[in-house]
Amino acid sequence: MDPHVNAGRLWDTLMESAEFGATANRGLHRLALTNADAQVRDWFVDKLQDQGCKVTVDDMGNIFGRRAGERDDQPPILLGSHLDSQPLGGRFDGVLGVLAGLEVIRALDDNNVRTDHPLEIVNWTNEEGARFAPAMLSSGVFGGAVSKEYAYARTDSDGVRFQDELERIGYRGESPCGEHPVAAYLELHIEQGPVLEAAGEDIGVVTGVQGMRWFDLTIQGFAGHAGTTPMHLRRDALIGAARIVEAVRDIAIECDERAVATTGLVRADPGSRNVIAGSAYLPIDLRHPDTGVLDRIESSIGARAASICEDLNLTYELERIWASTPVEFDEVCIDAVRNSAQLAGYRSRDMISGAGHDAVNVARIAPTAMIFVPCEGGISHNESENIQPWHAEAGAQTLLGSTLALDKILK
Amino acid sequence: MDPHVNAGRLWDTLMESAEFGATANRGLHRLALTNADAQVRDWFVDKLQDQGCKVTVDDMGNIFGRRAGERDDQPPILLGSHLDSQPLGGRFDGVLGVLAGLEVIRALDDNNVRTDHPLEIVNWTNEEGARFAPAMLSSGVFGGAVSKEYAYARTDSDGVRFQDELERIGYRGESPCGEHPVAAYLELHIEQGPVLEAAGEDIGVVTGVQGMRWFDLTIQGFAGHAGTTPMHLRRDALIGAARIVEAVRDIAIECDERAVATTGLVRADPGSRNVIAGSAYLPIDLRHPDTGVLDRIESSIGARAASICEDLNLTYELERIWASTPVEFDEVCIDAVRNSAQLAGYRSRDMISGAGHDAVNVARIAPTAMIFVPCEGGISHNESENIQPWHAEAGAQTLLGSTLALDKILK
Repeated sequence: MDPHVNAGRLWDTLMESAEFGATANRGLHRLALTNADAQVRDWFVDKLQDQGCKVTVDDMGNIFGRRAGERDDQPPILLGSHLDSQPLGGRFDGVLGVLAGLEVIRALDDNNVRTDHPLEIVNWTNEEGARFAPAMLSSGVFGGAVSKEYAYARTDSDGVRFQDELERIGYRGESPCGEHPVAAYLELHIEQGPVLEAAGEDIGVVTGVQGMRWFDLTIQGFAGHAGTTPMHLRRDALIGAARIVEAVRDIAIECDERAVATTGLVRADPGSRNVIAGSAYLPIDLRHPDTGVLDRIESSIGARAASICEDLNLTYELERIWASTPVEFDEVCIDAVRNSAQLAGYRSRDMISGAGHDAVNVARIAPTAMIFVPCEGGISHNESENIQPWHAEAGAQTLLGSTLALDKILK
Repeated sequence: MDPHVNAGRLWDTLMESAEFGATANRGLHRLALTNADAQVRDWFVDKLQDQGCKVTVDDMGNIFGRRAGERDDQPPILLGSHLDSQPLGGRFDGVLGVLAGLEVIRALDDNNVRTDHPLEIVNWTNEEGARFAPAMLSSGVFGGAVSKEYAYARTDSDGVRFQDELERIGYRGESPCGEHPVAAYLELHIEQGPVLEAAGEDIGVVTGVQGMRWFDLTIQGFAGHAGTTPMHLRRDALIGAARIVEAVRDIAIECDERAVATTGLVRADPGSRNVIAGSAYLPIDLRHPDTGVLDRIESSIGARAASICEDLNLTYELERIWASTPVEFDEVCIDAVRNSAQLAGYRSRDMISGAGHDAVNVARIAPTAMIFVPCEGGISHNESENIQPWHAEAGAQTLLGSTLALDKILK
């Protein structure tokens, strides 16, 4: 019989980890390199060592726990995610992927299974970016997306440097980040969206991460007195903003079911109850797995903004302020995940990740895939984030199965 | 030949008054009962006395300058407006109506014209309401709209009481506010809107003040991750807000050309670039001269909000938080203004005031009308507020003509 994870042990370990940085509302407030982060790191290192793993820390604070393989000179299969959280965040975002990796090693030990490749469990430093922007900072250095000097110089809102905090909590290790060969990387994560739950499915086989583009749109009209300016003489920037908010949604819906486009806020100026808005600002968040489609949507948004503003005698500026290229994960790793989920009898679907993850950075240098499990109501980055224990089990079991499959497939 | 105002003298007096509370950008910062307000009051009293007027101050700080009539036992024809300003406001809003009243008396003196009725020029205290809310406070006591006790107890943002400031600057007079008979009241004011300028007209014959209603609308949806929530699973409160912003405009445009409806801002919560808005708030400002029409528009807005929110799986609450009944000015006073403008050769139109004025309160107890003159770009409550000298002259001349006409017509 194939080895199986211990669902109760995994859940207990998750709950134990949630004590470090616990909030009154059963959430987690464990920002990167704070004392709470240091505590959970110490606890995690203990757990790895209890399991007989060899622990190393690199100079970005990434923690690796290594279980030797039959052919220990091969690069390791790496499993993991992150233990830091958003402010008033949830107990599973990131944590599940790290502790499910630990559970994989425990299950292999239980069953006296020795893999050909060494296995390593990783906790990436500062994935959330909530304290030190940008997000995925240390996997970024690991994968060569950003430089170590850049990362070290990041500061929090109090002006405290990343490097200083890393040294303060004692997690600036010796091994140079970015010089760590990897045979393959698997990351289990909660979906952070409602798709799997809505479909009644257990496992998302993540085939890639969609491309993202951020835009800033400012609209210029003319402020006026709400009581004395007839409708036909107005140049109301908020009417332009309202039409563009609606247009951005329409363009995404008309495109295909994978396109998402969002306006999260609108700011009117002067922003008074009885003053016609003289100008308005809105940000646009656009995501799709295909660069060509992103290009087409971007040009549609531009064209619609131009026509809306012309109709209303407004002017506008549309600026793309950030773009992230779509990532396609490794076919071999994806197949391993898909097959493992099917073999274990889970209902699964292929899907694209809407959010960024450390896997995006690791995919730059090693074959990579991700596994998603449903989270309650799709809610994440929130104290009320929750998952069902059997989904944690399904995710960990799929991680275990994929690891064993890759261990056989990879040379 | 009929007496004529002295345009140069009027303009010089306006410019002189603008020195009290002048800002670097040629505006006015002269909030009610501040030292700047006290200074302009002292200056104004001097000017009235220089002109031989008898000055009285009532216990709300309203200043009256009286020129005796042939039959001095009759109630006076009252001309005026206010000398206080908005924060960083303009030099003409209110001031023009007071100083044009002074110019009327000067012009009558120049021409040795004695009216049958006594004439009085008034400066109303705290029209703007920018320091002590609500606006039109002291004309409100004068017209019986609010009580003196209520007015005295108003406080500014530092908690300072109206009554204490009135006493501090020495303008709590002896005569009881509200016991002052008036034969008729005329108020000249800048339009504070773009209609006259756009039409190339000189004089607005103000036949009334439109009714106003304020609403608060809150929309409830469900927050979600902008990258992971498919379009068809969203309950985006900002989409609902955008459609309602547009619907409010459409309803006003479809109604008639006198209807104005405005959304000055939209607030989304949590209000983050990459989070779908879970809720949204927007205020609505609705104005029309007819109560029945206001009722119909209000119910249209409610119906459209209901249908928009139902389509988007959102809920909402629409609350009317304030209402002001439409005011119709006195036919005799309106005719006097219309005829005087025509006789003087000015291009004029009948119009409804979109903003509230002290005349609304005085109209409760005396025949009342208003005269509007164009202001540059319709801009007001702004340091850049401006008018042309010949429009100041046209307004003052119409005020003079109307006063003489009313003096003959009224018993």
